[in-house]
Amino acid sequence: MDTHSQPIDLKSNPQAMEEVLLSYQEDIQSVENQIKESLSSSIGLINDVFFHILQSGGKRLRPLLLIIASRLFNYKGKDHVTLGSVMEFIHTATLLHDDVVDEASLRRGRKAARMVWGNQASILVGDYLFSRAFIETVGLNRDDLNFLLSHTCQTLSEGEILQLINTNNFSMSEKDYLKIIEFKTASLISLSCRVGGLIAGTSEGNQEALAKFGLNLGIAYQIADDTLDYMAEKDLFGKSLGQDFKEGKITMPLLHLMNHCDAEDRVRIEEMFNQDHFLDEDLVFIKKLLGDYNSCEYALSKAESYCERAKKEISHFLPSPHKNALLIIADYVVTRNR
Amino acid sequence: MDTHSQPIDLKSNPQAMEEVLLSYQEDIQSVENQIKESLSSSIGLINDVFFHILQSGGKRLRPLLLIIASRLFNYKGKDHVTLGSVMEFIHTATLLHDDVVDEASLRRGRKAARMVWGNQASILVGDYLFSRAFIETVGLNRDDLNFLLSHTCQTLSEGEILQLINTNNFSMSEKDYLKIIEFKTASLISLSCRVGGLIAGTSEGNQEALAKFGLNLGIAYQIADDTLDYMAEKDLFGKSLGQDFKEGKITMPLLHLMNHCDAEDRVRIEEMFNQDHFLDEDLVFIKKLLGDYNSCEYALSKAESYCERAKKEISHFLPSPHKNALLIIADYVVTRNR
Repeated sequence: MDTHSQPIDLKSNPQAMEEVLLSYQEDIQSVENQIKESLSSSIGLINDVFFHILQSGGKRLRPLLLIIASRLFNYKGKDHVTLGSVMEFIHTATLLHDDVVDEASLRRGRKAARMVWGNQASILVGDYLFSRAFIETVGLNRDDLNFLLSHTCQTLSEGEILQLINTNNFSMSEKDYLKIIEFKTASLISLSCRVGGLIAGTSEGNQEALAKFGLNLGIAYQIADDTLDYMAEKDLFGKSLGQDFKEGKITMPLLHLMNHCDAEDRVRIEEMFNQDHFLDEDLVFIKKLLGDYNSCEYALSKAESYCERAKKEISHFLPSPHKNALLIIADYVVTRNR
Repeated sequence: MDTHSQPIDLKSNPQAMEEVLLSYQEDIQSVENQIKESLSSSIGLINDVFFHILQSGGKRLRPLLLIIASRLFNYKGKDHVTLGSVMEFIHTATLLHDDVVDEASLRRGRKAARMVWGNQASILVGDYLFSRAFIETVGLNRDDLNFLLSHTCQTLSEGEILQLINTNNFSMSEKDYLKIIEFKTASLISLSCRVGGLIAGTSEGNQEALAKFGLNLGIAYQIADDTLDYMAEKDLFGKSLGQDFKEGKITMPLLHLMNHCDAEDRVRIEEMFNQDHFLDEDLVFIKKLLGDYNSCEYALSKAESYCERAKKEISHFLPSPHKNALLIIADYVVTRNR
């Protein structure tokens, strides 16, 4: 039997994201230390590129979820530190490759690594980080972890490939869109949650609940991210405004708009996506229409419903500060920056 | 005790590369079949990109070495087929990423995948293949294989990064050059040889001998490859002539030339490497100088000496058709296309 949901190291019951981050600061710091140790490569370029991204912010969402999930089931070992760093390695590798694929110039409000060191370094350091993630995981000698990590990496790349195939594809359904974001984003967040429970030795059922919590939370996170791309101010959001639009990525607000606007506007939007360069006035036009049809509100309400599903998946866990932290994170991913 | 070097399935003692390929045709066919099964992804683009490279030739050197090394020590199982496909997945993934990094237009005499499907698809399908390689390996539930594969992938990416850092670097030593090619090329060939012995259950000493055979063979292979880049005709060699020169890769023949030509020529060569676009006449000039100083002959003699070292590493294995096949491959990698 699992004796879950007992507080171990929380001084108090966290009420907001800042308090969650504060509560697990020590564990997160251990992950950061492990990352630094693990990555002190003799090749300076590898460290430079990796730490450029690492130090440009990010809330370490994946390590954080892994840590909390492990603490929720009274985990007392140290593998959560190693595996937290693994999740961050994988995540950073995908960011490096994404930025090359998307030809992005900004990442978390700073120059994308490819703008500083070039596409070549971004591709190769991404490859290096994938291999480091496997080295760290394999070092724990657990077939179950190796299985989960390798399959999740496959799913991540499939998600990216599906997204690439559907560039400028307006016949994509909302279901197709949801599959893409489940694969490219939610799968790693789901894995982080599952692995926390797995190393703590909780039941299959509880691991599955954690995985589903993470999957729904990840979908909510990506829908919100895609919607904020049309809503946020540049300074707040840390990447170029309308980035998805420029890259021909069809996301939920736009899918909603295309399904509700009149034929004339639909044709005009499709023409915009088919032209080589987008104009600032195109983005103004799209944002106006998104406002007219409440498309961003629609997308955010969808994000909220996935957030609610996530919370429901762990509703049977006993109340505890750790469970509360998970619930706060679920709310945070859809409300941040609004 | 190992009862090594007993012929299992060879009809005769192979005398030349064609006979080696014929002798192991059945095993190689099993690897090809496994690759096809393993890669029947629901995402057509993945299959298209992978099979474009796979079907454009290549002698399946890595699976072949793995198969022969396993047969040399009487391996009777089926893991050589899975692991042969793993080596080909990793190799193909590195080719896809290399072509993007090098901005190459040709690969094995055909359009590089990136010229057909774009850089984005090449990066992402490469990532997919790395993850498939891990899935297949992890499925064998062997910590030793997981360890070796993850560390070799790290070494491969380090080699590529070192090569990138040393673009246009004429102060690079021959030792630096040898480290790069050991990391980026020889490490995977070495792994293929070692793994064949490992799954056959031969002694640590024999595995180590196979690994060193593969390492030296891999170094010989890459030196020869780099030298042929300046010697071969386009049709024979299947990639653009002078490709390394265009990419600012400093390889062994050029290092030799720079260490022997006069100061005036050295300055002129450095200027060529520092300009944005290379001219056909630059290549003609370089090739003339390489001829004057016998630089290609020097490099090929180095390749031959690594080939001899490779053969020496397995000289204590008892004579057998399988051992003979390894020796023929060692000679082949330095003499092919000459």
